[in-house]
Amino acid sequence: MRLEETLERITPVSEEWMMKAKERLDNLTKPRGSLGMLETLAARYVAITKEIPISMPEKEIFVFVGDHDVVTHGVSAYPQEVTTLMVKTFLAGRAAINVLSRCVGATVSVIDIGMKHDLKDEKGLIRRNVGRGARNIAHGPAMERDEAEKAIEVGIEMAERARERGARMIATGEMGIGNTTPSAAIFSSILGLNPEDVAGRGTGVDETGYRNKVETIGNALKRNNEILTDPVSVLAAVGGFEIAGICGLCLGGAAAGMAVVVDGYISGAGALLAMRLNQSVRDYLFFSHRSLEKGHKLFFEVEGLRPILDLDLRLGEGTGAAIAMQIMEDAFQLFNGMATFEEAGIEPGA
Amino acid sequence: MRLEETLERITPVSEEWMMKAKERLDNLTKPRGSLGMLETLAARYVAITKEIPISMPEKEIFVFVGDHDVVTHGVSAYPQEVTTLMVKTFLAGRAAINVLSRCVGATVSVIDIGMKHDLKDEKGLIRRNVGRGARNIAHGPAMERDEAEKAIEVGIEMAERARERGARMIATGEMGIGNTTPSAAIFSSILGLNPEDVAGRGTGVDETGYRNKVETIGNALKRNNEILTDPVSVLAAVGGFEIAGICGLCLGGAAAGMAVVVDGYISGAGALLAMRLNQSVRDYLFFSHRSLEKGHKLFFEVEGLRPILDLDLRLGEGTGAAIAMQIMEDAFQLFNGMATFEEAGIEPGA
Repeated sequence: MRLEETLERITPVSEEWMMKAKERLDNLTKPRGSLGMLETLAARYVAITKEIPISMPEKEIFVFVGDHDVVTHGVSAYPQEVTTLMVKTFLAGRAAINVLSRCVGATVSVIDIGMKHDLKDEKGLIRRNVGRGARNIAHGPAMERDEAEKAIEVGIEMAERARERGARMIATGEMGIGNTTPSAAIFSSILGLNPEDVAGRGTGVDETGYRNKVETIGNALKRNNEILTDPVSVLAAVGGFEIAGICGLCLGGAAAGMAVVVDGYISGAGALLAMRLNQSVRDYLFFSHRSLEKGHKLFFEVEGLRPILDLDLRLGEGTGAAIAMQIMEDAFQLFNGMATFEEAGIEPGA
Repeated sequence: MRLEETLERITPVSEEWMMKAKERLDNLTKPRGSLGMLETLAARYVAITKEIPISMPEKEIFVFVGDHDVVTHGVSAYPQEVTTLMVKTFLAGRAAINVLSRCVGATVSVIDIGMKHDLKDEKGLIRRNVGRGARNIAHGPAMERDEAEKAIEVGIEMAERARERGARMIATGEMGIGNTTPSAAIFSSILGLNPEDVAGRGTGVDETGYRNKVETIGNALKRNNEILTDPVSVLAAVGGFEIAGICGLCLGGAAAGMAVVVDGYISGAGALLAMRLNQSVRDYLFFSHRSLEKGHKLFFEVEGLRPILDLDLRLGEGTGAAIAMQIMEDAFQLFNGMATFEEAGIEPGA
């Protein structure tokens, strides 16, 4: 579905079902609110799906893959070829995200949305390449505006496909050497923060690499300054294809009435763009974890959001989202399975 | 096994196996350390069990149940009978801990270690009652010193029983109306902190109840001041039977070379006593979550410990521990299942 159409279809979640969920939670055999965040997760999921009891959802994790010419500035600890090698590891089922998705019972889908290298015959890869790597953002825009829209629409397509296959809970993930740099540029531009406050060490650059990174982000924002006018323009100017895919998955998920579990820092940049394109998107997003990447904490503070986990993860791929899905399912099982006060013969207390 | 004998059997975990685990972790297809806490959890588990690959452990959660005469001071939002009613709900498999233990595939064992009411014929209840409720700590000691030792030994017995049945990962849980009050008294006494800094709202007392609670804790510490000389004395003076059981489970688990997942605030008080009885116990403990209860945060800070989760839980029963067990198993699966750099044909980076 086209971007404009998708944005129009997104509505706030049901307050009526949110109330119904809270009512049930307050009748379960526990002090009111004592399951903390597990209660708010379950209630929001009910407000999205409008269903009590909760049906345990089919789950799909989308790993969007893209490259970044900005790596020539030495902003990453790994060479660009690692993107391709990691995609092969995903498809072989041997990466962290594969292991975790098996733990939680989710499908993993890997999408070439902006890889440099064309993995033509690779079995299992979803081929939706919009461009062969994002161009060097320090020298000009990462992509054209219509490419950005097209990449967002790939994300929307993935959400719709998941919905058709019966999924009610989807998650974002990514792979792309160098992609914390454009993510930091997006946080900086959208939130009005300094590059040094939002840029972190990524997968582990040294001090020189870090200084290059901050400088490169500053240059990218300066060089593209005139076109940083709206979320899609920011994405096209200083973003990347996989970030566009994540943005689209958030939008498509919200439009289709699904819960979207957002992974870490890079996914956060995509989700932020989606929230700026339509403010009701926020109701459908579940932020899985606070990554060790510096600007992530700031993002949550500025946006008034709270992630589910805080495990010092900084791997990406969707790893934090997979673990968070497990906790969400725990919350759903509690919602469905606990006895009510009446069933237990207890007077509700405080 | 007797307390003294158990304390003598506890040794520090294997540094050699810790190193072996770290070596493997650094060879997996991810930037070094990028799985954050998941890496440290797996490494410490290997240091405990001395086994690579990790065998997915049998798991057992122990819910120790006791009552507290201190409830007559209005320190809890619920009447004492709720302890009995909740035990029935546990045995019927309908409480939060039952739902979560099914999610994680753990057995739940419920132990009457200090219940007021004798549930004689209740099927499935493990009957090890040491005393019919802890006595009112504001007026004198909760129990005699030999009762405290006996209750600790019940916990040790449970750990040994679990080990014999093949468990390698056990968890603490509890139920007992009023038991945040003795827990706060233990934190205050052992850590040298003021009652108002460690006491929280428990399951939800109002302002008057909270003031009663702080005052009652102060009175308990004053009244028992002369006998607060060592961990077992503190337990006997201002603790409770279920807290003693938890302390024993930590000790027995460490002595038997098992990982012990510690639930929330009350379990934390039991674990703190165990750590003071033998400092190597710490190596075997995994603190599952930071509860909303005020003093819990302070306890972690003072002891330099970091909990796995922070979900605003304040229910007890072992609920946080059950969820943390899931995350630990995720860590073990990653440890076993991810490809190495060599297998993926990637040069290790930073």
